[in-house]
Amino acid sequence: MKKNKARLELSKEEMKSYGYQIVDAIVEHHATQDQKLPVALGSRKEMDSLFLEEAPEKGSDPSQVLDFVLEKVMTNSANLAHPRSFSFVPGPSNYISVMADALATGYNIFSGGWAASPAAAELEIVTIQWLLKVFGFPKKKGGGIFTSGGSMANLTAVVTARRIKCGDDFSKAVIYLSDQAHSSNIKAIRVLGFKKEQIRIIPTDNELKFSVNKLKNCIAKDRLEGLQPFCLIASAGTTNTGTVDPLVELGNICKKEDIWYHIDGAYGGAAILSKKGRQAMKGIEKADSLTVDPHKWFFQPYEMGCLLIRNHKNLSHTFTEKPEYLRDIEGNTSEINFYDHGIQLTRRFRALKFYMSLKTFGLKEFRDAITYNIDLAEEVETMLRGSKSWEVVFPATLAVINFRYNPINKKYSEKELDKINQYISEKVVESRKALLVTTILNGQIVLRMCLINPRTTMKDVTDTFELCKKYALEIEEELAGKV
Amino acid sequence: MKKNKARLELSKEEMKSYGYQIVDAIVEHHATQDQKLPVALGSRKEMDSLFLEEAPEKGSDPSQVLDFVLEKVMTNSANLAHPRSFSFVPGPSNYISVMADALATGYNIFSGGWAASPAAAELEIVTIQWLLKVFGFPKKKGGGIFTSGGSMANLTAVVTARRIKCGDDFSKAVIYLSDQAHSSNIKAIRVLGFKKEQIRIIPTDNELKFSVNKLKNCIAKDRLEGLQPFCLIASAGTTNTGTVDPLVELGNICKKEDIWYHIDGAYGGAAILSKKGRQAMKGIEKADSLTVDPHKWFFQPYEMGCLLIRNHKNLSHTFTEKPEYLRDIEGNTSEINFYDHGIQLTRRFRALKFYMSLKTFGLKEFRDAITYNIDLAEEVETMLRGSKSWEVVFPATLAVINFRYNPINKKYSEKELDKINQYISEKVVESRKALLVTTILNGQIVLRMCLINPRTTMKDVTDTFELCKKYALEIEEELAGKV
Ligand SMILES: Cc1ncc(COP(=O)(O)O)c(C=O)c1O
Ligand SMILES: Cc1ncc(COP(=O)(O)O)c(C=O)c1O
Repeated sequence: MKKNKARLELSKEEMKSYGYQIVDAIVEHHATQDQKLPVALGSRKEMDSLFLEEAPEKGSDPSQVLDFVLEKVMTNSANLAHPRSFSFVPGPSNYISVMADALATGYNIFSGGWAASPAAAELEIVTIQWLLKVFGFPKKKGGGIFTSGGSMANLTAVVTARRIKCGDDFSKAVIYLSDQAHSSNIKAIRVLGFKKEQIRIIPTDNELKFSVNKLKNCIAKDRLEGLQPFCLIASAGTTNTGTVDPLVELGNICKKEDIWYHIDGAYGGAAILSKKGRQAMKGIEKADSLTVDPHKWFFQPYEMGCLLIRNHKNLSHTFTEKPEYLRDIEGNTSEINFYDHGIQLTRRFRALKFYMSLKTFGLKEFRDAITYNIDLAEEVETMLRGSKSWEVVFPATLAVINFRYNPINKKYSEKELDKINQYISEKVVESRKALLVTTILNGQIVLRMCLINPRTTMKDVTDTFELCKKYALEIEEELAGKV
Repeated sequence: MKKNKARLELSKEEMKSYGYQIVDAIVEHHATQDQKLPVALGSRKEMDSLFLEEAPEKGSDPSQVLDFVLEKVMTNSANLAHPRSFSFVPGPSNYISVMADALATGYNIFSGGWAASPAAAELEIVTIQWLLKVFGFPKKKGGGIFTSGGSMANLTAVVTARRIKCGDDFSKAVIYLSDQAHSSNIKAIRVLGFKKEQIRIIPTDNELKFSVNKLKNCIAKDRLEGLQPFCLIASAGTTNTGTVDPLVELGNICKKEDIWYHIDGAYGGAAILSKKGRQAMKGIEKADSLTVDPHKWFFQPYEMGCLLIRNHKNLSHTFTEKPEYLRDIEGNTSEINFYDHGIQLTRRFRALKFYMSLKTFGLKEFRDAITYNIDLAEEVETMLRGSKSWEVVFPATLAVINFRYNPINKKYSEKELDKINQYISEKVVESRKALLVTTILNGQIVLRMCLINPRTTMKDVTDTFELCKKYALEIEEELAGKV
């Protein structure tokens, strides 16, 4: 009988010591990450010189490979969980979820079909019910699915909207979103085969909210032209400014016009766990589908997105295909095969980390963390308003704040201000001490902080402002021709 | 200054002991999984009674939550890495990759853009180059991306094919695949907005290969009707039987007809690492794009799929969108932002586990494991051919074999044979001792083994056949009216 030696295995002792080494590294990282630098810098050339090689035919000692990775790979990666990682949407994460995820991977649990893992399917059902309740969605009829992230959740929503509202022919279908909607929505729409002419980018008002009036005009005009308005994407927390669109009004329009109402709450949705956020999110429960992204402000490690849906049958109706070798995998419909509710067939057990972290910390700790984040951003706003050097460009909203260096005693042109703030950002990033990049608001280059990390302190913020100030003075001197 | 207490943190000591507990559980599982039962059974009702509850406001002791999960969740999940998990495509996985993945999660590395993690982007580039070489793709021009799995890789391929070949208007586009192509391809095509009339399912020949003749007729007819043949999907290892389509001929047709040539090698592609597989895969290097699925026969834990592409610019051309707050993230084009090469923006660091497991075990161990798998299936075929009870329905191909109980001394009708083999499968699964489900070949219900687990021994197989035999006799008695 054939004996196989190539089993890709370690002995039990080797596994244990290797596993402990990894845990030690992760724990050390978590215990010291706040003291590390959030930014990594490295050119392709530098990285090539470190890592480029042919695939090795022969193996190496596990610990040696691990040491190399810890020394060269982990140090050349930004730390988006760092308290001074202010840009994009940070990923604060949490340790319990990290380890829960390792458990899911260690058992290699296949979270596609009920039969493959009843417990995994059940925990996805249970945790999605938790989220349905949090967002005021119908408990019985509602459903959802965990995805790789917000991009896939938004894409899944648009596919579903199209199937339900248009069936097979979407040649006349039109979709609406605001100029502040996240780019992943446009990307999804394009990937799904809509033409540019089928997308309406509605301007926002002064507050950067979806302009209801302009939307109404646009829908009316499209109807007159015989087109089919079928889907609207609102934002519950735009990435740029944290702005929540007028969810109630948009919901009413969608209802009246028989338009699928999708809300992208990928980054902002979690705010509903706080008092202020709950106020801001009024109307979110009207959505036909809602994207939330647990790997953002629900503090989960990458990857974990989620699409919640008012009527869960719309997902299965959209995504069910039955190949022959899955025919034994029937069962009653309450035993959900999540591969029939989304695009992925093989799926990892994402629900486990969400479940274990919520059970361990309790929802209240999440609420408190999110409340802290929102309050911190408001405190930063107050501080900036009291300063002679800084201008609040957009008020603190759902823990995001936009500002720029604009000292009141100087009369810089817009062009100069752009240059100054761009310079500040570049220098701060170059220093590696904080991740602070710019965005564009009303044509101005501004600095933006997204403060969803519960470990970020006011000191992290003020230290960063001091750093900014230093570079601001540098560029001001240069502009004054002194350098 | 505000002080935050809700930081979702543990102390260093707590982290360590929690981490070790998790490692201990994973190691114990890996050391004993071959002795466990591969199948889990549980109804929705049973699972509800175990897990259904409201989201807890208050937290719990981490170890208590962990113990509950180990006891109730992990035991109610099938083990697709079990040596007697024969069905679908098993997930043998390996311990090094499990821990490497934990490391990536522990540092919460964002593998979307170069600036966020130069090392993560680089390792994705390096490991994709390894794969490009393995599959004979052009090194300089070639590229690719890691995805959540084969489904997303196939979808990414079809989006790219459509963009490159059709641009915005695909109303006349037609896509070709065989009746043995994996269902994820049809699903992707439908998700992307193609109508049923745009899909040509070409019958396979006696060997279950893409019929080249029928394909040619079909393309010619479509051209006559003014349609646009734009993409063909071949299989390098069908899921049902392991069959490889005539890759060279199909490649020639695609070249001549200016059709995008996608090959789905999600499960079978890895076979190229063995001698026999390399023979079978001749022509795979002609593809415009190729799906391989490291979480299958490259022994990676879930999730990890991969799309390789002949011309990497076709990916960026298809998937690049530039929102404002990503504007600081430019750089030279060799510093790849993988979010511009696929659908996901946030991406976890999938490359790390592939890299570390290949560095640790060496490519040769992968080759040997895959060779062993292919040989084992052939040995099983020989055994079955020498038996009076079993019929080989389709010969061992790329470690897959299809067979049925059909004793030569009995003259069962096709209907009876279907019933017998269905019964055997049901009983085996019910026993939980092996995962062995049926598929349909040529209208017959047959049993199928996919033997890609390097820890599966001939004894695992023969034990399973004995179990099958037991249930076969049961149902035979019943059929004979003896029960
Ligand atoms: C509002 C919004 N939607 C969608 C996304 C995309 O989510 P992901 O990066 O998880 O794909 C983001 C990411 O920042 C976002 O802020
Ligand atoms: C040939 C083939 N293609 C695609 C897939 C889908 O891959 P995944 O399950 O990783 O999405 C499979 C899965 O079995 C497959 O066998």
